[in-house]
Amino acid sequence: MSFDRIFKAESVAIIGASKDETKRGYQAIKTLQEEKYEGRIYPVNPKEKSILGLKCYRSVLEIPDEVDLALITTPARTLKGILKELGEKGVAGAVVIAGGFGELGEEGRRFEEEVVQVARDNHIRIIGPNTSGMINVHKGLNLVGLKNVPQGSIALLTQSGNIALTLITEAGLKSQMGFNYYVGVGNEADIRFHEYLEYFTADPGTRVILMYVEGLREGRKFLQQASRTTRVKPIVLFKSGRSAKGSKSAGSHTGALAGISEVASSAFKRAGIITVEHSDEMFPIAESLASLPLMQEKAIAILADGGGHATIAADYLTELGIKIPELENETREKLAAILPDNASLANPIDVAGGTDQNPAIFADCAEILLNDKNIHGLLVVGLFGGYGIRFAKKLAFMEEDAAHRMGKLVRKTRKPIVLHSLYNFARPHSLDLLRYYNIPVYDSLEIACKCVEALSLYGAYMLREHREGNFQFNWGANALPRGQQIIDNALAEGRKALLEHEAKELLRLQGAPVSLDRLAVNEEEAVKIAAEIGYEVAMKIVSPQILHKSDAGGVMLRLKNEREVREAFRKITKNAREYMPDAEIKGCIVSRMSGEGVEVIIGTKIDDQFGPIVMFGLGGILVEVVKDVSFRVLPVSRNVAASMLGELKSSAILDGVRGRPPCDKEAIVRLIVKVSELVEAYPLIHELDLNPVIVHEDGLTIVDARIILSEEEMEKKKRLSLCLDETAVCLD
Amino acid sequence: MSFDRIFKAESVAIIGASKDETKRGYQAIKTLQEEKYEGRIYPVNPKEKSILGLKCYRSVLEIPDEVDLALITTPARTLKGILKELGEKGVAGAVVIAGGFGELGEEGRRFEEEVVQVARDNHIRIIGPNTSGMINVHKGLNLVGLKNVPQGSIALLTQSGNIALTLITEAGLKSQMGFNYYVGVGNEADIRFHEYLEYFTADPGTRVILMYVEGLREGRKFLQQASRTTRVKPIVLFKSGRSAKGSKSAGSHTGALAGISEVASSAFKRAGIITVEHSDEMFPIAESLASLPLMQEKAIAILADGGGHATIAADYLTELGIKIPELENETREKLAAILPDNASLANPIDVAGGTDQNPAIFADCAEILLNDKNIHGLLVVGLFGGYGIRFAKKLAFMEEDAAHRMGKLVRKTRKPIVLHSLYNFARPHSLDLLRYYNIPVYDSLEIACKCVEALSLYGAYMLREHREGNFQFNWGANALPRGQQIIDNALAEGRKALLEHEAKELLRLQGAPVSLDRLAVNEEEAVKIAAEIGYEVAMKIVSPQILHKSDAGGVMLRLKNEREVREAFRKITKNAREYMPDAEIKGCIVSRMSGEGVEVIIGTKIDDQFGPIVMFGLGGILVEVVKDVSFRVLPVSRNVAASMLGELKSSAILDGVRGRPPCDKEAIVRLIVKVSELVEAYPLIHELDLNPVIVHEDGLTIVDARIILSEEEMEKKKRLSLCLDETAVCLD
Repeated sequence: MSFDRIFKAESVAIIGASKDETKRGYQAIKTLQEEKYEGRIYPVNPKEKSILGLKCYRSVLEIPDEVDLALITTPARTLKGILKELGEKGVAGAVVIAGGFGELGEEGRRFEEEVVQVARDNHIRIIGPNTSGMINVHKGLNLVGLKNVPQGSIALLTQSGNIALTLITEAGLKSQMGFNYYVGVGNEADIRFHEYLEYFTADPGTRVILMYVEGLREGRKFLQQASRTTRVKPIVLFKSGRSAKGSKSAGSHTGALAGISEVASSAFKRAGIITVEHSDEMFPIAESLASLPLMQEKAIAILADGGGHATIAADYLTELGIKIPELENETREKLAAILPDNASLANPIDVAGGTDQNPAIFADCAEILLNDKNIHGLLVVGLFGGYGIRFAKKLAFMEEDAAHRMGKLVRKTRKPIVLHSLYNFARPHSLDLLRYYNIPVYDSLEIACKCVEALSLYGAYMLREHREGNFQFNWGANALPRGQQIIDNALAEGRKALLEHEAKELLRLQGAPVSLDRLAVNEEEAVKIAAEIGYEVAMKIVSPQILHKSDAGGVMLRLKNEREVREAFRKITKNAREYMPDAEIKGCIVSRMSGEGVEVIIGTKIDDQFGPIVMFGLGGILVEVVKDVSFRVLPVSRNVAASMLGELKSSAILDGVRGRPPCDKEAIVRLIVKVSELVEAYPLIHELDLNPVIVHEDGLTIVDARIILSEEEMEKKKRLSLCLDETAVCLD
Repeated sequence: MSFDRIFKAESVAIIGASKDETKRGYQAIKTLQEEKYEGRIYPVNPKEKSILGLKCYRSVLEIPDEVDLALITTPARTLKGILKELGEKGVAGAVVIAGGFGELGEEGRRFEEEVVQVARDNHIRIIGPNTSGMINVHKGLNLVGLKNVPQGSIALLTQSGNIALTLITEAGLKSQMGFNYYVGVGNEADIRFHEYLEYFTADPGTRVILMYVEGLREGRKFLQQASRTTRVKPIVLFKSGRSAKGSKSAGSHTGALAGISEVASSAFKRAGIITVEHSDEMFPIAESLASLPLMQEKAIAILADGGGHATIAADYLTELGIKIPELENETREKLAAILPDNASLANPIDVAGGTDQNPAIFADCAEILLNDKNIHGLLVVGLFGGYGIRFAKKLAFMEEDAAHRMGKLVRKTRKPIVLHSLYNFARPHSLDLLRYYNIPVYDSLEIACKCVEALSLYGAYMLREHREGNFQFNWGANALPRGQQIIDNALAEGRKALLEHEAKELLRLQGAPVSLDRLAVNEEEAVKIAAEIGYEVAMKIVSPQILHKSDAGGVMLRLKNEREVREAFRKITKNAREYMPDAEIKGCIVSRMSGEGVEVIIGTKIDDQFGPIVMFGLGGILVEVVKDVSFRVLPVSRNVAASMLGELKSSAILDGVRGRPPCDKEAIVRLIVKVSELVEAYPLIHELDLNPVIVHEDGLTIVDARIILSEEEMEKKKRLSLCLDETAVCLD
């Protein structure tokens, strides 16, 4: 459904309208009037005849015309009754201000669910509860009380009214860019982040979506929608509640599912979201993305009128992964022609006093630099805008000339210019001119650099990196009858854990390179299998009750011949019986001994927020002690799987160290993709653990495999709609 | 010497005084007059009679009175002649504006050295060259041309005039705190950073020293002085030129020794320096340290009037290592009595509207919180200062009341309050009041948090961490005749590398736990030594020419009896002869086989900026691939050595993983300290490498030891005064 009747409401009922100036029910009407709301306002309060010159109704049902949206300012306990009336009236949406829901704990959460159910039964969508409200800036539909919101094309979606106030205040003060929508999502009880995203994605007036998030109720759906949104327009996101204290504070604040999982940052990146680390970077980055062309490559020129700023910018951009490439000879020659001898013509460019008599030379330099084919954007740092203030008034006019020319240059070259000026606060006319041309100006050098980073990150995403997955599962796709049978058998036997040979068989069916491991139920079979797969072999106990095989004396390695295999079978089964007399002993698995190689681990589990995820790490101390592991939300493509290998701190080990040959990285990538497909094929798989996997120079050996099933988890997946997409093939 | 005649000059000669308004020689006089310089100004220019109403002299020698300081505005080539005249006149110091020295490369560097020599010969100290100048703000001694510098107690020491301009502009706009001195150190050709530091340390008017550094000429002396300074007052330092591009930019800018070594950050920390990561944090952190009491513990309360800011602050402070402790029950009860029911009384505290009608409640909360014994400071975040703007005018008076009370509270409790306010830009009177009480206010939440971090870091340093080393060597201390003899013998034989048994003997003499390794010159000796130290033993070739013993077939392990030792001696010497027929074969070293344990590496080398440093890491892939190593500037105390162990990402391995017992960490710490003492005892040691060292559950085994000597290096140490302190015992 479209939210047009909510966000573009032609009429609003104020439930709990009041004549008391201190009440929200008064302030809301006053604000709508002052902001010149284009639609109709209907105060509702059984005790009043009229408020602020408007007729007041006893109930929404008495309102003669259609009502699109209701602002409910009354306490939580009144909600259910009001929602029923709104439903009867055919109102499309309600903004619920009241707190007293999920943010208060378990009881509040139950009440919240009941309220949402009433809303659903009455075909009403809820913004909130526990929200500061909603604004359609251009329409004057202001249900918040924040006045003078600067107009623009940024849609603001936050879980904190204070953060909205901060951003709106900052925009009004420092920018010419503003907002078209503000939504305080509150407890996200009904309408979820991904639904708002979907609406703003389709909205032609929205150029950037700026989000402050404390917790996501439906992480998987959010990722799915985000990856659709970022193909069209950027999302800038600040994720709060990372620490235990912060998450506790967020929990008491919005009742959101607290904390962020370790997979979030890579998942956000893959979905094309620009994540922001510091709150003071939120607006500047959104502003830059809403104003400037994107960078085609992560390569920029720095133009400075003093060494310090150039050095700081070069350091920081380098740390952010932005290149500061050498200039072409032609570029250097052209710069040399207009700058003094002592100017530094290597990138960063220091004009060394060359603009002191005529700051319009900044525009000449900018033009020369942006015409260099290795340069995809320009960062100007230092005093620009302040020459007229600091030196002589006439220089201000030259700065204005430069501003006009730089503004047009951006339009012509489609390469961005980002400006840092320490005179920004003084608002010289030249800097306002730059803003008129959509070139933002920042006082903080670091924030200017962060904007450059965002322009290059999103540029790279739009050009090259937007194909890596939509976070959609096609459940049951490629499931095979034989595989399903293995799972069904285990469940029929009351087992949640597949036996090692079952897990390996499931992998083999999926096309994973599983060696010829087979179950031998007696000595004779063991000898036969060993002969078939070739010596040396390893043997391991198979029993549903024995999970730690080594502890039970149930593992024997490097068996060289028939005699040793026979002895091993007897010894292993004897050990197992002594270790656990009641254990059901199914036999021994016989496998070829693995060759030399690097030990790695691949596993999957269900993340609370994002559903199935995959983990990859190097075995031994690196995973146990250094925690050198990489996570991705499933499913993964080849490229995403490959990126996991490079992300490890110890990835050089895969390329061969201490004279070892490089190991077969391609085989690892293939196996991760197969694991992803397996989890997709059989939604009953709850956890999978391949540990260790030995990766050889050519190929790999899955030494041990463990798969845990969960019927509850599948039910939960369905109930939460966490992963089971309506459009996908579903298991019954 | 004191720099009083420079920084508190009673008289200044302007060399190159001019009537041309665009010339520095005019502007300098004009500025001194406008800033009401308290001393005498003497323009010097052979072509003028008077400038700006002052008599102009043909030469300094013609000036009738004493001249303390000269500002030289003429080009580089005129310098030598001018300095000679200044010397004759008895001038104490010269500020040299001109560029054209070390920043231009090798030729410039030589010229710079010549100029410094002329200055030394004439007993003149130079600020610069290539500097923006120097200011004594309180005295009006302004040789820069930056006007309206806000007065205060921060001494500013920078390598960039632009950064100074940025900081001074920022202070004037946003603070009531300002500067007492500004020095542009320029190329640091004569007066070095550590000399300025020493002067400002003794200056009673200086409360904080704020530094922008691109490169240090004498890193070791800087550390020594910094560790003396920070016992008295804080140093806030921003280090630029970290990246290759940045360091190139810095090099072309100041000609400084570019780049920063990997030991710098731990050394700065150990010297008590507060390092700043972003340039926009420089002034705020200096301001906080100059204004507020320090925090006794890293434990703070957050007081917020909205969830978003509280959550962001809690996250960020947690990441910065600041605790947000639980409140005492009494504190919670007192808060509950004045805040509404829905307020969050856990730390962070959210007043949840409890200040909307009366923001003076902020002061009540502050008092309750700062009286909690677990709370050592308070961060107030959100709208404070804006209640009068946003809601009703009368609330502004309540905010002012709160400001007075919070100001007095800080004085009374000696615990700091740091404020974030999104209304800071509007400069409401309440926030100016806070500043009057030396409580700074910031618009950026993250910067406010960084100030809290600085107050707690420096608090911890002053209370507990200031004893860890002064970076002074006592060269030759504890050198033993027998040790010196080993070194002298090697040098006499023309060897730079000690043989393994020599290196181990040197370690043993120093008290390091070296096993009974001994050199056997023949089979019989080998058998005898093996019997003495006990089987199993290892044997390794000893030859000055054979550095890679294994490659030469010169290592045999796990020898169990006399027969094997004899065979090994024959085989090793035979292999060595075949490997390198000309090699001088001294025999075999016989050592006890090492037991089980964790492999570690300890090494020392000479760092370009800081002199001798020590490295510690875990052996094998962790050091080779993950680069998991820790560095410290030598000498090190027990505590510093111990901190190296905890710093490793893989330090858990030392505590025992996979069922292994913990290894003897105390033995590692003792060995690092012994290595430090060894380097101090014998300054000829250039590099030392103990690799591997096997650390057991009890004790450790130094399996291999390598020591490289360098006479050149010792000469260089002396010449650069890099490490040889005048006060210390010196070798001749």
